[in-house]
Amino acid sequence: MVLAEQLSTKPLSADQLQKIDAYWRAANYLSVGQIYLMDNPLLREPLKLEHVKPRLLGHWGTTPGLNFIYVHLNRIIKRDHLNILYITGPGHGGPGLVANTYLEGTYSEVYPNIGQDTEGLRKLFKQFSFPGGIPSHVAPETPGSIHEGGELGYALSHAFGAAFDNPDLLVACVVGDGEAETGPLATSWHSNKFLNPIHDGAVLPILHLNGYKIANPTILARLSREELQSLFVGYGYKPYFVEGSDPAEMHQLMAATLDTVIHEIQEIQHNARSKGDPTRPQWPMIILRTPKGWTGPKEVDGKKTEDFWRSHQVPLAEVASKPEYLQILENWMRSYKPEELFDENGRLIPELQELAPQGEKRMGALPHANGGLLTRDLKMPDFRRYAVPVPHPGTTEAEATRIMGQFLRDVMKLNQDQRNFRIFGPDETASNRWNAVFEASDRTWVAETYDYDEHLSPDGRVMEILSEHTCQGWLEGYLLTGRHGFFSCYEAFIHLVDSMFNQHAKWLKTTRHIPWRRPIPSLNYLLTSHVWRQDHNGFSHQDPGFLDHVVNKKADVIRVYLPPDANTLLSVTDHCLRSRHYVNVVVAGKQPALQYLDMDAAIKHCTQGLGIWEWASNDQGSEPDVVMACCGDVPTMETLAAVDFLRQHLPDIKIRVVNVVNLMKLQPPGEHPHSISDVDYASIFTPDKPIVFAFHGYPWLIHRLTYRRPNHNNLHVRGYKEEGTTTTPFDMCVLNEVDRFSLADDVLDRVDRFKYERAHIKQIIHNKFVEHKQYIHQYGEDMPEVRNWKWPY
Amino acid sequence: MVLAEQLSTKPLSADQLQKIDAYWRAANYLSVGQIYLMDNPLLREPLKLEHVKPRLLGHWGTTPGLNFIYVHLNRIIKRDHLNILYITGPGHGGPGLVANTYLEGTYSEVYPNIGQDTEGLRKLFKQFSFPGGIPSHVAPETPGSIHEGGELGYALSHAFGAAFDNPDLLVACVVGDGEAETGPLATSWHSNKFLNPIHDGAVLPILHLNGYKIANPTILARLSREELQSLFVGYGYKPYFVEGSDPAEMHQLMAATLDTVIHEIQEIQHNARSKGDPTRPQWPMIILRTPKGWTGPKEVDGKKTEDFWRSHQVPLAEVASKPEYLQILENWMRSYKPEELFDENGRLIPELQELAPQGEKRMGALPHANGGLLTRDLKMPDFRRYAVPVPHPGTTEAEATRIMGQFLRDVMKLNQDQRNFRIFGPDETASNRWNAVFEASDRTWVAETYDYDEHLSPDGRVMEILSEHTCQGWLEGYLLTGRHGFFSCYEAFIHLVDSMFNQHAKWLKTTRHIPWRRPIPSLNYLLTSHVWRQDHNGFSHQDPGFLDHVVNKKADVIRVYLPPDANTLLSVTDHCLRSRHYVNVVVAGKQPALQYLDMDAAIKHCTQGLGIWEWASNDQGSEPDVVMACCGDVPTMETLAAVDFLRQHLPDIKIRVVNVVNLMKLQPPGEHPHSISDVDYASIFTPDKPIVFAFHGYPWLIHRLTYRRPNHNNLHVRGYKEEGTTTTPFDMCVLNEVDRFSLADDVLDRVDRFKYERAHIKQIIHNKFVEHKQYIHQYGEDMPEVRNWKWPY
Repeated sequence: MVLAEQLSTKPLSADQLQKIDAYWRAANYLSVGQIYLMDNPLLREPLKLEHVKPRLLGHWGTTPGLNFIYVHLNRIIKRDHLNILYITGPGHGGPGLVANTYLEGTYSEVYPNIGQDTEGLRKLFKQFSFPGGIPSHVAPETPGSIHEGGELGYALSHAFGAAFDNPDLLVACVVGDGEAETGPLATSWHSNKFLNPIHDGAVLPILHLNGYKIANPTILARLSREELQSLFVGYGYKPYFVEGSDPAEMHQLMAATLDTVIHEIQEIQHNARSKGDPTRPQWPMIILRTPKGWTGPKEVDGKKTEDFWRSHQVPLAEVASKPEYLQILENWMRSYKPEELFDENGRLIPELQELAPQGEKRMGALPHANGGLLTRDLKMPDFRRYAVPVPHPGTTEAEATRIMGQFLRDVMKLNQDQRNFRIFGPDETASNRWNAVFEASDRTWVAETYDYDEHLSPDGRVMEILSEHTCQGWLEGYLLTGRHGFFSCYEAFIHLVDSMFNQHAKWLKTTRHIPWRRPIPSLNYLLTSHVWRQDHNGFSHQDPGFLDHVVNKKADVIRVYLPPDANTLLSVTDHCLRSRHYVNVVVAGKQPALQYLDMDAAIKHCTQGLGIWEWASNDQGSEPDVVMACCGDVPTMETLAAVDFLRQHLPDIKIRVVNVVNLMKLQPPGEHPHSISDVDYASIFTPDKPIVFAFHGYPWLIHRLTYRRPNHNNLHVRGYKEEGTTTTPFDMCVLNEVDRFSLADDVLDRVDRFKYERAHIKQIIHNKFVEHKQYIHQYGEDMPEVRNWKWPY
Repeated sequence: MVLAEQLSTKPLSADQLQKIDAYWRAANYLSVGQIYLMDNPLLREPLKLEHVKPRLLGHWGTTPGLNFIYVHLNRIIKRDHLNILYITGPGHGGPGLVANTYLEGTYSEVYPNIGQDTEGLRKLFKQFSFPGGIPSHVAPETPGSIHEGGELGYALSHAFGAAFDNPDLLVACVVGDGEAETGPLATSWHSNKFLNPIHDGAVLPILHLNGYKIANPTILARLSREELQSLFVGYGYKPYFVEGSDPAEMHQLMAATLDTVIHEIQEIQHNARSKGDPTRPQWPMIILRTPKGWTGPKEVDGKKTEDFWRSHQVPLAEVASKPEYLQILENWMRSYKPEELFDENGRLIPELQELAPQGEKRMGALPHANGGLLTRDLKMPDFRRYAVPVPHPGTTEAEATRIMGQFLRDVMKLNQDQRNFRIFGPDETASNRWNAVFEASDRTWVAETYDYDEHLSPDGRVMEILSEHTCQGWLEGYLLTGRHGFFSCYEAFIHLVDSMFNQHAKWLKTTRHIPWRRPIPSLNYLLTSHVWRQDHNGFSHQDPGFLDHVVNKKADVIRVYLPPDANTLLSVTDHCLRSRHYVNVVVAGKQPALQYLDMDAAIKHCTQGLGIWEWASNDQGSEPDVVMACCGDVPTMETLAAVDFLRQHLPDIKIRVVNVVNLMKLQPPGEHPHSISDVDYASIFTPDKPIVFAFHGYPWLIHRLTYRRPNHNNLHVRGYKEEGTTTTPFDMCVLNEVDRFSLADDVLDRVDRFKYERAHIKQIIHNKFVEHKQYIHQYGEDMPEVRNWKWPY
């Protein structure tokens, strides 16, 4: 155990100490000002109620601690010329980050309207949490941030994601002790087993023991020192404690501790890099224990406020109805001595300005925090080279994701030197059949390795941890700092990151409208091991609902693709890796499956997004009796088999087959940039014929997308309806009535022209079901007629 | 550090050792048999390919370890008459739990068709992972289980949930080292800070270091012993290591260790209970390191298999195409010496039968694992007593969730002695305004407490941890063992448990069709601090999409309520707490809001689920020009204000107001048990008039529910469309066009009768928006006309 108290040095001179404290007071002053004031920003006149905002919104409790850390990081950045990315786990502390980026000058550079003068200060205060102003959190609007911190749990995985492949970057990651209780945060400490000290940067976790959440102590703040120490040693860190409340003592302690840990980090990196030894070191971390709402009112109405949960949001919130609060507020603000900090024009005095780093070294101006600035295109192989030959549609098989893996392998190879591409997944890269990537790279692994281990290396670029949260957090951090990636996941379990996806989509939406933010590479998901092929795992592994979740977000950042075979998957993959600032969701199976389109046809089909498959249709030159639409690999196969069945038994029937790759094409015009026009829609789906639509996911998603489309009343959709267990692949379709016979039955119910043949064919279908059930119960697999079906025309 | 090797005792006699090993071999034999065989279960003839299933599905790797633990727990149950609930974190190991419950006799009791004889064995083997048979996981079909383990991360939170208020229960919780990497599991170790040794049972975590995931080592298995030890000491446990692969040694070691830890648990409980001292003890845990696929093939085709990830699923999976595998499989199965274990009729020999506990002491027959057996109704106060007086609709205000809190306080009080009710939430009970419950109970807290802390106690029944995952996991464990609860959560962040909800809903769906499973209390959610009132927190805290997610699950287990005011919320709450085997989702605001219905009207409205609000309508005796429908508290207020605005400016207009409390009423008949008929639907929403529907959530959810309903073409829905920031409450509505003026505008666009007045009124609306924007930008709050609006009729 290393107690910072035991560090004998007091590294700050009296002058330095005084200045650092003054700078901290300035940041605290500006933070309080943002929360409370709309006028009189420098308190040049006595505070009146009309200077105070009518609605007081914000979070004071965490802010002074964030400000404390910021000013101390500034000192070492200046001294050591470091590139430090500041990740604010307690993102509620928005005022602190706004205050600091304002003090260092970046804020006024990106928002010239908020100048470095009294009027600028007035606007700075008023805009905070004010209609038409800025959000109360460390939002995308805040310079220097890649992390909102509204939804807690991802600070550390974002920090590590940013550090990967950035050897000259130090990520200072403040973890709130509230956030530390979340699951995603609790496991993300183990990210140190994936950080290569040679080629990656460093992460300095600063656990901020602020003591309290909204109305409760935090767990970590109420452990014994021994347990706390033991926990983080167990996680693989060397914790340094910085604890106290006296500012002068705490400044010395923090400065001494930062000197020590920065030196240790530099030593670790120097050792690893000079010796080429990537062995996992014991990285230092800081445990900073300060009072919640530090320097704020000690008591309000006789109730403990500083160092207690009552300072979480806005102490003195009832200032409008309690006149005595106004004086408390004024006294509190004057305690920072603004007259010593700002000149008569409202500008930070020059000797304090000097404390901030310059240019891109300022944490608010670090290019990594605006990753699009650093984004380089991937070197891309020609995806056509990986094409599966399809001499005739629906007769040969391939494993789509395995083919995709070969393409990704070469993306990996081509960008090995750029070090800007990684793939992520919860121990499923091989299971999801991207095996080929292991020809180009290993799994990242900076823990113990045995001689019989396979494809583990500290240099690996395949990131696997059994935590979808950590995979997503790493990838987000990697993308937000301007690099590229792909996340493969079992379809059902991508729901684990529903909420993380929400936050990232919201970030993308907001940053589209912030001019100084540059577009970043898209967040790409491959969802495989999907609902229809959970032969091993059954009901608990069946859920295609992520698509429903995704399409709730703003259309201009969302793309959803369901390529039916390997060549369409290749085309879609190429597109995703070249795109910017989207979330691309790709659903594709990993099992051997029929192939339909050769590469030229695949490119054309993907470009259109949806279209008539002429080769599978027989309505040419006439009106179809029915449109059979399909979306997703298994529904496509079942649809084609249904067409075959119907054409065998009703040789006269005219069927048009439509396949959908790009789900967003279905949405009405105006709803999504990809939408096709209603005229085109009707030319494909007909204005008035029945449509039987076999869909990969929950059927009502198709209705939701098309309810305003022509001919919607004739649309009948089949899909997954929560029927499933461990059974055969075809039986899964039967249970959910998306199988070939059920689809044929749906057609019979809707095409009047064959009403006399209907009963007879329905009997055949009934017999097929009986035969199917008997066969699988006896043999445990699907009957050969189903298993071996191929497109016969 | 306690090394089990240092325990000097060898507690098992030679006879005991031989029997325990034999029992373990029997369980392993039955496990392998289930994965591979469909006939010749006792290998009475040489194994042939026709005895082997054509599709081999299952997970061997974790199974022998699970069997090892089971037989050792059996020994101490018998000796000490313990009630042990066995939680199988690695739920993939289904064959092991089926095997053990079969050996102890419970399996045949609940499934008489699977008898204790050769034919029973044959069926037992064949049914596993076979069409028409049982799933491959520890599924709801498995006796003794409350935990599927298909989606990983919740074993320990389920275990603690089961232990709360069950002082005589010991929950043995196996945590896989894969699962241990997940976020939810990583934080759930801290549940020990919430376990009261006096009134709660004990949890014995058994971390199973199996070493590997699907294709990767696990992190915890590759830490140094020192780090591993330190990590769990830091989490507050006293770890005992049981490590090795030699069965005889391991049996002694496990027996000695179990003797020690059970003794320690008993000592802890005795001390706490005799002294009335609930101080948090250092609970023991076991770290069991055994080879993955222990006792299986050491190598296959020269590749390491036992003690490696290759034994994760089915070693020798290609037995049909590789004839040499058949002999390896037969040798493997015969290595367990089945002829020594089962008699000529295929029944476990009597001296081994004696090793299993009897009756309800058998882990497969423990009543806690079939919680409905133990469920007692809550004692319920009359919810009408908490009614808010509503002398006139829409003129008085109340905070709905605060009123609900008063009701819950008395539910808490009345059931204090039964100890079967708790409430759960991530540090938001007070923030969500259930403050009154603190008059009846404190927050559960078994960590350090200071004298100025408020409402913390080891006896508290309000469970708060800043981890939605842990709250949900505890609550599920509590419900599954037959008790009651309510979970309050910020609406946006309930998405964190989307996937946990999925798994619980799937469990409920499946258990409805398992006759021996009894219904359990419903899982009740209050979603508050909702999308429309994130004044403090802005865009990151705005997401009403959990409803979209929920309605994807089977209709017979899902209920969704959006009571518009306090009295309707009381009625709904009463209903939820009395219900069984549902997921009830209740959405209600916490802010002061207008009240519409007195208690009698509220009860009637909730009973109907949706209906015309005559007092707000003026179409009596005539046809309405428009139906204005609303669902949710804020949309209801905006709708009524729009009605007022329209009636002011168009005195002739006839408006019908419809309010929806029970969302499922909207679904077409047959889709949901709550659906109303199309005739009733049309009588409320009219067959042909325009409907302007203001909805709390994403607008397309209403379309999804109603696309088959009459008059759907005339339905226009407004709701949240991902526009938001930190702003005023009314401006949030304006941004999303669900405000009174936008709704009035929508009506104008749809009612032809007033086409001449249209332009004029649209100009008034335009002016209102300008006025609104100017006002909020100047004053930072909504204009008084909006803020103070009341229903004037």
